Amino acid sequence: MAPLAPRSGDAVFASVERVNAELFTLTYGAIVRQLLTDLEEVDEVNKQLDQMGYNIGIRLIDEFLAKSNVSRCVDFKETAEVIAKVGLKMFLGVTASVSNWDADGLSCSLILEDNPLVDFVELPDACQGLYYCNVLAGVIRGALEMVSMKTEVNWVRDMLRGDDAYEIRIKLLKQVPEEYPYKDDE
Amino acid sequence: MAPLAPRSGDAVFASVERVNAELFTLTYGAIVRQLLTDLEEVDEVNKQLDQMGYNIGIRLIDEFLAKSNVSRCVDFKETAEVIAKVGLKMFLGVTASVSNWDADGLSCSLILEDNPLVDFVELPDACQGLYYCNVLAGVIRGALEMVSMKTEVNWVRDMLRGDDAYEIRIKLLKQVPEEYPYKDDE
Repeated sequence: MAPLAPRSGDAVFASVERVNAELFTLTYGAIVRQLLTDLEEVDEVNKQLDQMGYNIGIRLIDEFLAKSNVSRCVDFKETAEVIAKVGLKMFLGVTASVSNWDADGLSCSLILEDNPLVDFVELPDACQGLYYCNVLAGVIRGALEMVSMKTEVNWVRDMLRGDDAYEIRIKLLKQVPEEYPYKDDE
Repeated sequence: MAPLAPRSGDAVFASVERVNAELFTLTYGAIVRQLLTDLEEVDEVNKQLDQMGYNIGIRLIDEFLAKSNVSRCVDFKETAEVIAKVGLKMFLGVTASVSNWDADGLSCSLILEDNPLVDFVELPDACQGLYYCNVLAGVIRGALEMVSMKTEVNWVRDMLRGDDAYEIRIKLLKQVPEEYPYKDDE
């Protein structure tokens, strides 16, 4: 059977089960508030959000692969484009542009065009160090790890913190080569 | 201008912004896990989920009233039907049936046809007292309070606990009469 053609982010998003975005936004807000109450330190909240995201990402990748028909990307550049145009669209209904590549092609930025996580959110002064959407960094890191890419993922700009965009930086640390059922030197 | 006709749950659900249901399910799962870790006692987790839901419900009601064109319900029976057919549909994409009315018409049950919160969830033995979806009880209680209905909302059946359905019981405790700008006796 011929492989299925990869589907566009719009097509995938239209076909998956969905819930109301505002419910999701408010539910996510409830998590952040709970963590701020329980952990007190903003840095700890950032870490915990990242870890939660990681746990979500390592499971969400299955849904992504099952629904998107995306097969193994040829390189990290293609991977970044797929996250920006298919992955974010499929799960959050938004897309991003990929930019700010470094010279060796191992780091790039996703600039989000919209960010449904932050609707109605204003950070009080006491939370200025908070990366409110840090869960998203963890999701990307977790999902990529399941397709053999070890990455560092960090927010570098955040409109909640007064920046002019939402920018997530992804750095490829290590790519585990695909394992074949035979060895080249045998 | 004539008032707008109330919209069906399907129509409202189709028109609101949405995110992927699996992302929501996993995010909700991350909250519950976090609470179990932080609070240890299952009863405390149930309470906290209810309180989180309440905080969500008192805000979600605005979106509901803005998007559904539902106006004031004539009585609690109509209210229950609107929650079951429009509210749940609008936010979770599912509907419920309303049943088990008591004789005085002040208590009823919502029987959910489907429950996207519990996909992939299995409760470990240590969590047998957990009402995993208790956030939903809190959302309903919070939303109703904002339209002047004081209620008690509890889960009575939960398939995660081995029951044969998802059943939420709503009891109307007090209905604050609508305030008019004049008094009848003046």
